[in-house]
Amino acid sequence: MPHRLFSTIAAASLLFLCAPHVGAAEKESKPKTMSEVLAASKPADWRKLDPDNTVYLDFAAGRVLIELAPDYAPAHVANIKTLLRQHYFDGLAILRVHDNYVVQWGDPDSGEKEKARPFGEAKRSLPGEFSQAIARQAFTPLPDGDVYAPQVGWSNGFPVARDAKAGQTWMAHCYGMVGVGRDTASDSGNGAELYVVLGHSPRHLDRNVTLVGRVVQGMELLAALPRGSGALGFYEKPEQRVALKTLRLGSEVPEAQRSRLELLRTDTPTFTALVESRRNRHDDWYLYQAGKVELCNVPVPVRVADAKP
Amino acid sequence: MPHRLFSTIAAASLLFLCAPHVGAAEKESKPKTMSEVLAASKPADWRKLDPDNTVYLDFAAGRVLIELAPDYAPAHVANIKTLLRQHYFDGLAILRVHDNYVVQWGDPDSGEKEKARPFGEAKRSLPGEFSQAIARQAFTPLPDGDVYAPQVGWSNGFPVARDAKAGQTWMAHCYGMVGVGRDTASDSGNGAELYVVLGHSPRHLDRNVTLVGRVVQGMELLAALPRGSGALGFYEKPEQRVALKTLRLGSEVPEAQRSRLELLRTDTPTFTALVESRRNRHDDWYLYQAGKVELCNVPVPVRVADAKP
Repeated sequence: MPHRLFSTIAAASLLFLCAPHVGAAEKESKPKTMSEVLAASKPADWRKLDPDNTVYLDFAAGRVLIELAPDYAPAHVANIKTLLRQHYFDGLAILRVHDNYVVQWGDPDSGEKEKARPFGEAKRSLPGEFSQAIARQAFTPLPDGDVYAPQVGWSNGFPVARDAKAGQTWMAHCYGMVGVGRDTASDSGNGAELYVVLGHSPRHLDRNVTLVGRVVQGMELLAALPRGSGALGFYEKPEQRVALKTLRLGSEVPEAQRSRLELLRTDTPTFTALVESRRNRHDDWYLYQAGKVELCNVPVPVRVADAKP
Repeated sequence: MPHRLFSTIAAASLLFLCAPHVGAAEKESKPKTMSEVLAASKPADWRKLDPDNTVYLDFAAGRVLIELAPDYAPAHVANIKTLLRQHYFDGLAILRVHDNYVVQWGDPDSGEKEKARPFGEAKRSLPGEFSQAIARQAFTPLPDGDVYAPQVGWSNGFPVARDAKAGQTWMAHCYGMVGVGRDTASDSGNGAELYVVLGHSPRHLDRNVTLVGRVVQGMELLAALPRGSGALGFYEKPEQRVALKTLRLGSEVPEAQRSRLELLRTDTPTFTALVESRRNRHDDWYLYQAGKVELCNVPVPVRVADAKP
């Protein structure tokens, strides 16, 4: 039957968008599969999105939710919030879809003084926030190593890397991460042009671009957009561009219209058990267990609060 | 301007599908960028696709070319060739698009004895070819390590991993790799259901599934398909399925209609120089050089033979 491929992953996949209480009852027998870990999670293992750090992107295909990361890019996140409050992005467009790389949106007329949309109170130039001094950021380490960084793990749901010797930490370019387009100059980014990572994680961009957050819902809508045929995946004809209806800060969205999404906390024993369930797959389908997992291959599950079976 | 993001990658991106002779002249000053490496390549650095190991997948969106890897999955590749010669796949459909995971096609009626398409001379069950004994396979190692395997590199253009102690080698689940769907039993695959890797490389599937080749042209057509809303990304309604016109072995395609694609050989100093250009980016845009690169982040460039500027 066509369900042949990876059939035992079904339960886990479903649980991403259902309440984990639905599904397999908690087993005492370890090791657990991811679906069992989620089924055994407690309410305290989950957190709600903070409306003041969530971007609601609405376009014809549906809604995309982006969680912002002020701990890692405070100035850029503040500038993006200023642009959002001014409704800077409303009616702009997705200009570029570069296969196995990025989706990018912005002002198609940004290069023309007369037509470019005004920035209002927002800054046009910001020093890059490519890494931060290691301080009090939350950090749950992954024990399996990394090709690009001395240490990797998670910080409040964001995949991050660290260099203890250099005393620096930064977010990692995993699938779904959101970054700030810039020109060659390190301070040429401002948050008016944003990109989302598609395909195999381009970790070589780490510390070269300011990352500001990650897509927590609707990634499949961005990933399915037609690829651009121009250089760098830009759409060659204006009519190929994908219009953005609105980008709003969650706190400006009427409460009744806000998402009730919850994310699994990454500083909990439940998340540590989830990582272990990805390092060694005990689903019946797997014949060989890797014993390790890449940072970008560990999902941070989401669910709809109080979802009914 | 909207070209702000990663602008200096443009040249290299374009060169993927143009003759590398077009573009920057060879520089003596090292280190080189990828575009400079390709511009300096010699005809002998390139190889033509072998029509007898190339699958031509034609559907409404265009053409996808898949290079088969008989060195790593001889029995499955032979079975797929038998199915292709019987035109088994013609008129079947893409049944599943699972975001950040796989695109999969096959016979939607394979589960129903009466309606299932006959296999003819092809086998319905094959022992999994999850790895091979290390023998005379070509191998160009990558020096940067890997989270999942003791050693990784390339073999005739395919990303591969090795475990010298165990004496085994296998292809790696990088973006665009093509594999054989199977049920829980290790010998339940046969090549009639194939999947293509999308998104961040699911390397935990290595040694759990038989990989048979990789997409060398048209990946952007598969990647942009709508994601399925069912479990595992299956399309829930038959009308959502994406019809496949024909899948043919290149040697059965009339010569005039065959692709003139060439691939950069991976056993050449030019490819080694290309890998170095990806480990350390000397394009002006990059402020920080990673000094390393992941196996799945190194492209194997293709060009159209004798393409004119």
